[in-house]
This record gives sequence, C-alpha cells and structure tokens, in this order.
Amino acid sequence: MDKIVSLCKRRGFLFQSSEIYGGVQGFWDYGPLGVELKRNLKEAWWHDMISGHNELVAPPEAPSPFEMVGLDCTIIMHPQVWKNSGHYDLFHDHMVDCRESKKRYRFDQVRGRWCQKGDQKIFVTTLAEAEQELDEVRRRAMKFFKLRAKNADQLTVSDESLTLDQLDDTDDVLAPDAKSLGTLTEPREFNLMFKTTLGALGGEDDVTFLRPETAQGIFVNFKNVLDSSRVKVPFGIGQIGKSFRNEITPRNFTFRSREFEQMEIEFFCQPDQSQQWYRYWRDRRLAWYTALGLSSNSLIMREHHPEELAHYSVGTADIEYAFPFLPPGEYGELEGIAHRGDFDLRSHMEGKLDPKSPEGQPMQVELNEHGKPKYRGSGKDLSYRNEVTNERFVPHVIEPSAGADRAALAFLCEAYTEDEAPNDKGEMESRVVMKLHPRLAPIKAAVFPLVKKGGMSEIAKEVYGELKQHLNVFYDDKGTVGRRYRRQDEAGTPYCITVDGDSLEDRTVTIRDRDTLEQTRVKIDDLTTELKQRLA
Amino acid sequence: MDKIVSLCKRRGFLFQSSEIYGGVQGFWDYGPLGVELKRNLKEAWWHDMISGHNELVAPPEAPSPFEMVGLDCTIIMHPQVWKNSGHYDLFHDHMVDCRESKKRYRFDQVRGRWCQKGDQKIFVTTLAEAEQELDEVRRRAMKFFKLRAKNADQLTVSDESLTLDQLDDTDDVLAPDAKSLGTLTEPREFNLMFKTTLGALGGEDDVTFLRPETAQGIFVNFKNVLDSSRVKVPFGIGQIGKSFRNEITPRNFTFRSREFEQMEIEFFCQPDQSQQWYRYWRDRRLAWYTALGLSSNSLIMREHHPEELAHYSVGTADIEYAFPFLPPGEYGELEGIAHRGDFDLRSHMEGKLDPKSPEGQPMQVELNEHGKPKYRGSGKDLSYRNEVTNERFVPHVIEPSAGADRAALAFLCEAYTEDEAPNDKGEMESRVVMKLHPRLAPIKAAVFPLVKKGGMSEIAKEVYGELKQHLNVFYDDKGTVGRRYRRQDEAGTPYCITVDGDSLEDRTVTIRDRDTLEQTRVKIDDLTTELKQRLA
Repeated sequence: MDKIVSLCKRRGFLFQSSEIYGGVQGFWDYGPLGVELKRNLKEAWWHDMISGHNELVAPPEAPSPFEMVGLDCTIIMHPQVWKNSGHYDLFHDHMVDCRESKKRYRFDQVRGRWCQKGDQKIFVTTLAEAEQELDEVRRRAMKFFKLRAKNADQLTVSDESLTLDQLDDTDDVLAPDAKSLGTLTEPREFNLMFKTTLGALGGEDDVTFLRPETAQGIFVNFKNVLDSSRVKVPFGIGQIGKSFRNEITPRNFTFRSREFEQMEIEFFCQPDQSQQWYRYWRDRRLAWYTALGLSSNSLIMREHHPEELAHYSVGTADIEYAFPFLPPGEYGELEGIAHRGDFDLRSHMEGKLDPKSPEGQPMQVELNEHGKPKYRGSGKDLSYRNEVTNERFVPHVIEPSAGADRAALAFLCEAYTEDEAPNDKGEMESRVVMKLHPRLAPIKAAVFPLVKKGGMSEIAKEVYGELKQHLNVFYDDKGTVGRRYRRQDEAGTPYCITVDGDSLEDRTVTIRDRDTLEQTRVKIDDLTTELKQRLA
Repeated sequence: MDKIVSLCKRRGFLFQSSEIYGGVQGFWDYGPLGVELKRNLKEAWWHDMISGHNELVAPPEAPSPFEMVGLDCTIIMHPQVWKNSGHYDLFHDHMVDCRESKKRYRFDQVRGRWCQKGDQKIFVTTLAEAEQELDEVRRRAMKFFKLRAKNADQLTVSDESLTLDQLDDTDDVLAPDAKSLGTLTEPREFNLMFKTTLGALGGEDDVTFLRPETAQGIFVNFKNVLDSSRVKVPFGIGQIGKSFRNEITPRNFTFRSREFEQMEIEFFCQPDQSQQWYRYWRDRRLAWYTALGLSSNSLIMREHHPEELAHYSVGTADIEYAFPFLPPGEYGELEGIAHRGDFDLRSHMEGKLDPKSPEGQPMQVELNEHGKPKYRGSGKDLSYRNEVTNERFVPHVIEPSAGADRAALAFLCEAYTEDEAPNDKGEMESRVVMKLHPRLAPIKAAVFPLVKKGGMSEIAKEVYGELKQHLNVFYDDKGTVGRRYRRQDEAGTPYCITVDGDSLEDRTVTIRDRDTLEQTRVKIDDLTTELKQRLA
C-alpha cells in the first residue's frame, strides 16, 4: 500500500488537500493523471448506466426493458429535506470524551472487560480494533493495579467483551488512554453532516447542511422528472456529484474521506417486481466492476443479514473489495445496493416517519405535542399512476450507490503491478506498471521519436497531432526509449508508439502493448483506427 | 425570458432546488435534458482547453507552444488558504439594515440626493438601480414633506447623486422603503463565503469555508503539479468544479446563484511575456463562445478601466453577454480574464499582502503587533527555475475564469427561437426550437417509425440500438410525426431520423435537419458515419 500511495503522489494521481498548509485530514485532490482517471471512471459509469442505455431491450436477467435518465442537483438543499430523510435525527455518531487524556472516542468503538485483583474490580477498555488482543487488556490492568498497590494478588480477566452501554455506571471504567478511573463522559450525539448558514447574517432558520448523499436530490425531484420527461415506471434516475460527511476518523488514504464523490441510481419500480429488480441491479453492478478490470477474486458480494437491515428494507448487499491496506480476509465497501421500499418517497410526502418504531411494526408518523407529525412532509403527491391498469402506487426503490473515489482507489490498487520488462540493452529488469483498463487509463497512448534527429521528431509530432484530435495522447522525446516506456508504464498508458528509422522509409510505426510488451508494426495512416479498435 | 424559464422547467432543463419544499433561493437543479447540456458544455471546455490541447504547436496568435494539464481539488480546504488569498478579509459586502422596514440593503447599492423645502433638508435614498430616475427621488421627497406640512414651499433637489459614505451622519436620511428619517444602521460586514466546521464538535480553529472559487486549489497545488508532471513554463492548469457564494440577492434565474460551477484556468508564464499571454487568452476565450454558437452581436469584451483594476493587475477583461433579462444595451458577465501578476503565488509563499496598501505603491506584507505578517504564508518556495537560463522567478498568472451555469444559460437563451415549420398537413405553423450547437445538444438524434405497424418499428428499433452505442439518441413512436418533430425541436435535438414505408424496401431513412428543415435520404448502413460527420 505504501508503494501505491507514494506512486500516486509522485506521478500526480493524488495529493493531500492544502498540503502546503499541512493538509486537511480526510480531503484529497486529484492531480493531472488522477483527474483524467476519475473523469474516465465517471464517464464510463454515466455511459454504461445512463446515456448509453438502450431502453427498448431488456438486458440479460432484467425483468423488462426500462428507461434511465440523469440529474444534477445542488449540494446545499432546503433543511427540510434532511429532516424528512431522517439524516437530521439519525445520521450521527455517539462520542465520549476522556476528561484526563482530552481524547474523543466513538462510543461504539470502545469495548472492554472486567478485571479483578483482590477485592478491586475495574473495567478496562481499549478501542474495539485492538480489543482482539486480550493481552492488551491484561497488560493495561496490570499496570493500573501496580500503580495502586505493590503486593498484588492473582489478576483475573472476564471472558466476555462488553460495550460501555452494558455497564451500569462508568465510575469503574479505565478509559483507553487514561491512568485514572471514571474519566469518560456520557456519550454525546454528533451529527455527521457539515452545517452551514444561508444568507446574510442568517439565523437558526437559515441553518442547512451539505448533502451527505446525492440520493435525496433525486427523491425530491421525482415528480419534476416524471412531469418533464414522460418516463414510465420502471425507470431509473442517475446522478454523479460530491457529498460530505464529517467523519470522526478519516483514514486509509482516500477510502474514508470527508468530501467524496458518489455515483447513485434510484430505480423506481412496481412493488411486486421490486425483488427481481433488486437482484438484477445487485448482479449488474458487480459485473460492471469486473468488466473494468477488478479481479473477481478480490471482490465479494455481501448480503446483509436480516437483523442488519433497516426496518423498511427487504434486502441490502454491499460490493466489497480486498483493499491492500486491510488485513487479509477483510474487505472494504465499494458500493451498496439497497432495496428501500417506498420509505423515501413516502417520507417526503407525509413527513418523517418514527425512526424508533420497533422492527416489524407498521411505520408510524412521529407526532409532536400538538398531535401533528414532528417534521411535516412536502404534502406533494409523489405517487405514480400505471397508465394501463390505472392503479396508483408509491413506487419501490432500488438504490445502487457507488463511491467514485473508492472505485478509483480500487482500480489503482488492482492496477499496481511489479513485473519484469527488458531495458534498453534488452536485459530483463523489474518494472512498476499500472495495468489500468484502457477505458480508465488517463493517457491512451504516448508517441516517441526513437531519436530527436534525422526527421523522426517531425514524423512523431505529426502522428501526435493527428491522434490528439481523437484521443488523450502524450509526446515524449526525453531520455532513452526504455526510460520513456517505464514512465508510461507507471502512468498506466496502454500503448506506446515509436517512430524509428524505418518510419522514414515506409511510414510505419511500432505499437508497444503495456501488458504483453508485444510490438506490432502499423502504417501511420491506419494508426487512429487501430488504436480506437484496441481501446474500445 | 419568461418563455425560456417556462420551457426549461417544462422540458426538464432546470428545476428550482428543493422545489417540493418551497425551493431555496439561488440554488438550481439540472433535469434530464439540462444535465446532458451541462455535461456537453463542460466536456467541450475540457477537450478544447485541456485534454485535446496540442502542446507542440503554437496556436494562432500565441507567443509560443505551451502545455495544459487538469486538476480536481476539494471544495473544503485549509482555512489558511482563504486568509492568504485575501477572501477572509476582503470578500465581503457591507450591509445596512432599516430599523423601520426591517429590510437589508447592500451599502453600495443605496444612493441618494439632498432635497430641501423651506428650511428642512433631507437626504432621500433609493436603490442605485432606480436612481437614474430623478423623478423617483422627487416623488418620495414630495410625499415625505406632505406628511409633515401642507403649506409647502418650492422643493429643490440637488444635482449630485451621493453615496451614504459621503454623508457625515445618517440622521437626515430617508431610507429606500421608510417613512421616517434616520432608520438606517451603520454598515456591517458580511463575508460572502459559506462557513462550516471540521470534525466532531469542532471549535474556532476548525472553522473553514466552502471555496468561493476553484482558482485557489490550483495555486496551492502549483508545486505538486510541477513536481509530478514535468511541465515547463509557460503552462496552464485547468479545473472544473462547484463554488459557493452566499449572495445577498440571488436573481435572474441561474445567473446569480449561490452554488455554481466554474471552469477556470491558471496560466503560468514568464513575467516579461505576460502581456502577450493576457491578450492571447482574452481573444481565444471569446472565440470559444462564438464557435459554440453565441452570436458575436450579443457578446462584448469589456476591458476594465485602469481605476477598476486590482492593484496587482495590469489588465482584466470581461466577456459579457446580452442576456434577455437585462435592459437593452446591458450585458452580464460570462467570464473574466485577469492578469494577476505574481500576487497569488506570492501570497501563498509569503503571507497575506496588505489589502489596504495604496494603489500604485509597492505591496507590503501586513504586520501584526509582534511585527510578523498578519497571516503567515506556507513558507514553501513557489518559484520556478528556467532550465535554460537558470533564472528563478515567481511566474505571472493569466486567469480565464468561466461560469459553467452562466454559459449554459447564455447558450439556452441564444438557442431559443420562434419560427415556422410545416405541420402534419404541410401547413406552416409557428414552432419553438432550441437551436443548440450539435456539440451541446442533450440528444444528438431521435429515431421515429412513421407508424408503429408494418415492420417500421422493428427497423426503427434496430437503427436506435445501433446508434445508441455511439451517440445519445432517443426513440419516440407516440403521436404524429409532426408532433414528435416539435418535441425534439424544443429539446434542441439537431437531427430526426424517420423510418417509413420505403425503408422496408431499400433500407434507407430520412434525416431531418432541425434548423434548415431539410430532409435527406440516407442508407441505414451509412447512418452512423453520416451523423458522426454532421455532429463533429
């Protein structure tokens, strides 16, 4: 992983945001190569899901043909959107502070065990990640008892690992980085949305949030899209855009960022077909990643257990990738495909539903002291009328929600390869090569004159000029050809085109394949067509 | 203009953000057609400026060949960025409140004149826009004096229009919407950046801002780009992305939005060539708009007068468009091209420069009470070494800064046309047609079977399926062909392809041109090539 991070910075894929000012945790900028990679990735998604979708033919495994349209909504929306979506009340972490160490922890990440020595009993906590190590608990407990009394009895440690909310009080708790007991505060809620204020010297009513997901923009525009584009259920609306989450612990390079880009689809269908559509989207989205080069060995589809599901959902699956920064056997989420029922549209119609209603119970609108819903919905009718049966219903929603930055990171990790290739003398030497799919590669081909003299530069420049009208190509005449190959291998460029002595005679060039290292001779006049075919 | 706004909503170009909740002022969503238009617009800019740029040949009028690379930075950056850029101290409006009407005004938009009647003298204000009307001042003055005394002497009104800061005190001022004197407060500063806070329960140190421009992300990454991509001065870095300004008075449809998208280039060059590059970019950017269809009659290039220029700038020009919501003869800004000298890079190196230093004076770092710069720069060396001469210098910057939403709006306004076209009976009827440039048109072609029966649908679907692999095409078999043409005319689709009875015999179709209404017969096998040529 360190090698990948270092290559990303050195070659201009990714930089830490505001690096000259020491950086900001959880924010990343895309450099000259990275921006092209991410543009290609987003363009592939948009084409494959939205603009290139054939609405007349049912794709393999799909229950029927369907339509797809796009949308682009603002990041700042009306605050009522987040109240009715549930983000205002539910989208938060519980945090506890340590009065001694001044550190702050996520409540659910602190776990511990009871330790006893003589008649003194303390609850020793560690962060959940390290808690696998019973030794760590024992070591901390031993240290604590030593601070108190020298003549120590036998130390016993309970078998059961408990969370803080399983304790009656926290007076006997030894916090993860503390030396005294009882230094943890009660948990406090911290909303994960970034807050901001609209307008000049705005007050409480003008407080709003940066969107934590692009999905809600689609739901609140459902009726606008229906009214303006004549789409019929089943259909999907796709959107690509930035979202923001005030993550407590940004980490793992760009994997957990506070500002990130999403590629989301909300697919609206008849309730009685929603299970079929859920399975269709789950499988189709997985196939998209493998088609663009992720190895199926490194990908898993994780179906959530029934008890993990939100109360309105009848199924959710995560597409996960074996990122190299994770321990072997662990996977990180690339995309979630959720069956959301009619929860979202109904919330925006009728008001926020009670988040605390017991599972399995019919949902209820939460009422305030006047007997009115706590948050009033828009009151707009977001139902749909089937033109044939005349039946009116609130469509069910399947939501394939992908992270563009996580996908870019997965493709970068998958592409990173160390192998051997011949150097300028023909000897095999180790090389680093980014085996990016040609659709994703930032530069599609590089053009080299073998040497600058003898008319080769002129031909190479002509070839470059011609190709540049169609493809993002790069020109390089610095250093030996072997070194130029290496530089393009690191950038992930699929093809290198060399103009040599023979080119002067017969107007042919060589195309060198990044992965197979095979070299083919092609006429200059056929080059654009040949490259376009190879890149398709 | 009302017709354009209504078409944009009805056909799914633009919706008000969060409309079902009553909307949020100054925020707009792009619907299914709008998102494709804006994507095409941004893609045209990126291709023409960045990815399609030939770095080996000097374009016409350019002093030399140059390189162009892209970048994509975060919206939230380190707060120090905005202190050193000057936005923290200088990017604000002064507002005054009226204690009587509870209205708030921009200080610089309130102007007025002295009115005298007998021995009573009052200063009557109006908003600057209406102030051209001396009658308005006279009318309000007359009304005020009538309220006080019936036996009125001759009313005199001063010739000179003054601003509030030219008055000694505001006790005699009649505010724009008030009936009593002296109701205006002192002006208060209101920063135009959206404020937010980083991290869990963050404090004052964690306050940061949504970027008000994409440019600063480029400046703070200048060294990263230099180090990772081997570019040499002169070169440009381009970026497309959202920016945010907490505008006091959002208005004129999407023209003055609080959330908007920019397409910015920072072009780095040798100081002694900067004037030439400034002229080059100014002229090239104007030509870009006309090449994509804006009429040169509706565009002006407005060079700022020397007294309008920022102290570090030796030239700034605005490209302005005659938007139909403006009075005749007035223009609204599409893009600014600014010669920024070395101001930005130097500020991020050395700290914020004194914004109050008198014009024409050498710039000075503003010192705090300890004799240190008020805001310390990054301390990083952002100078550049010329490899040939070994000379070190801080490059001068030319900044062509375009608004993607304003450009989209200008193209929509320019495209809106009412003319006549034959209906299904061959009679001429009025029509609304969006004459968008083919590169910008959301849908490139629509495919119709003349009637659904007789095998025409099958061929039309086959044609649609083939074209869809290459272009964003649309299928329509509902209503008469005449009505289908009209729907595509409103969407700006350049070509309509009709499959008719003859198609069954000879596998040809008609292509109908949106603007000329000309119909050509083309073989189905040649259709993709023909359309690609026409759209290029």
